[in-house]
Amino acid sequence: MKNVNTESTADTAQCPWTTREAELLAVTLQQLQQHGYDRLTVEAVAAAARASKATMYRRWPSKADLVLAAFIEGTRSSSVPPHTGSLRTDLLEIGRAVCEHSRDHTPTMRAVLNEMSHNPRLSQAFHEKFVIQRKMIIDGVLAAAVERGEIEESAINEEIFDLLPGYLVFRALVADRPPTEETVRTLVDTVLLPSLTRRVTEF
Amino acid sequence: MKNVNTESTADTAQCPWTTREAELLAVTLQQLQQHGYDRLTVEAVAAAARASKATMYRRWPSKADLVLAAFIEGTRSSSVPPHTGSLRTDLLEIGRAVCEHSRDHTPTMRAVLNEMSHNPRLSQAFHEKFVIQRKMIIDGVLAAAVERGEIEESAINEEIFDLLPGYLVFRALVADRPPTEETVRTLVDTVLLPSLTRRVTEF
Repeated sequence: MKNVNTESTADTAQCPWTTREAELLAVTLQQLQQHGYDRLTVEAVAAAARASKATMYRRWPSKADLVLAAFIEGTRSSSVPPHTGSLRTDLLEIGRAVCEHSRDHTPTMRAVLNEMSHNPRLSQAFHEKFVIQRKMIIDGVLAAAVERGEIEESAINEEIFDLLPGYLVFRALVADRPPTEETVRTLVDTVLLPSLTRRVTEF
Repeated sequence: MKNVNTESTADTAQCPWTTREAELLAVTLQQLQQHGYDRLTVEAVAAAARASKATMYRRWPSKADLVLAAFIEGTRSSSVPPHTGSLRTDLLEIGRAVCEHSRDHTPTMRAVLNEMSHNPRLSQAFHEKFVIQRKMIIDGVLAAAVERGEIEESAINEEIFDLLPGYLVFRALVADRPPTEETVRTLVDTVLLPSLTRRVTEF
């Protein structure tokens, strides 16, 4: 928490792909949204993007790897820490971004999670390339709030650091009630802020 | 919230299946845990249970229906409201049950969610037979806490009523950190109870 390097956090928003690779991933996302995971083939993506199958497989050894890369690329805009200057608006912004990406990518996310059950390598890649990046965003937002004196460091609980995005993702994936701005606001104002500020006796 | 009928809530724990149907679902769960969703076939379940394929398909029109029924049957023990006499221990008990079921059924749950993306009928069945039952449990626990004077009704927020099970399910499905007793305790003591009791000025 204390060692968060905000420069490297900001770097996570930089595109790790060449222009051509980013094009291939954009085509993958398009085809995912049109046909779903099961009916997507690497061959069809290659054909639609006028690439060779060899090019595709050299970069992404399986359909699951390709789809994970496309999903991460599709949600990259939310890998930038918000830096709005207040904890409340930072949290609202993180929540807004999760809602937006959930709306676009719920079926893809479900398909990737299902693949992860029998593909430990994919599971590891998802963790390293997605979960850890998201943790850095939240760590950065909370560290900035401590810095500004909005919360005490002791009020931050590592065990449930991802409560905000986690509950919103649950709503999108499982609950049949996609999360809305109202969900985010309720969560931030009635749960997260009261919990994070509960031991702070004066500012 | 106020109209919760605790008798019908308790009924949700009663088995809706005949002994033979419950056997078939138990075999399905066994095969799911052994082979995973993709490699499970209705034929293999029928063979292992010495049932005819016709019997299976008459009761559950597709593999997805069969698996959903098995999943719901496998988590039925947590469809009983805890009634421990205190809100804190009721919440801890709900959390404990979610952790236990998540441990056993994460791959099944991922497979069912993935199927739901392209099967609206399955999605509706999951909602009616699982999500709504779980809501009744939580509504019952909160209503009892209001009744006992532990919390004020105005502190209950419908928008995020499923925060406790939702975050735990997220941890099991997505976060690569299966939820533990410590997760539940932290969530209940540092987040849920402070939020639910925050407007209560005296007991």
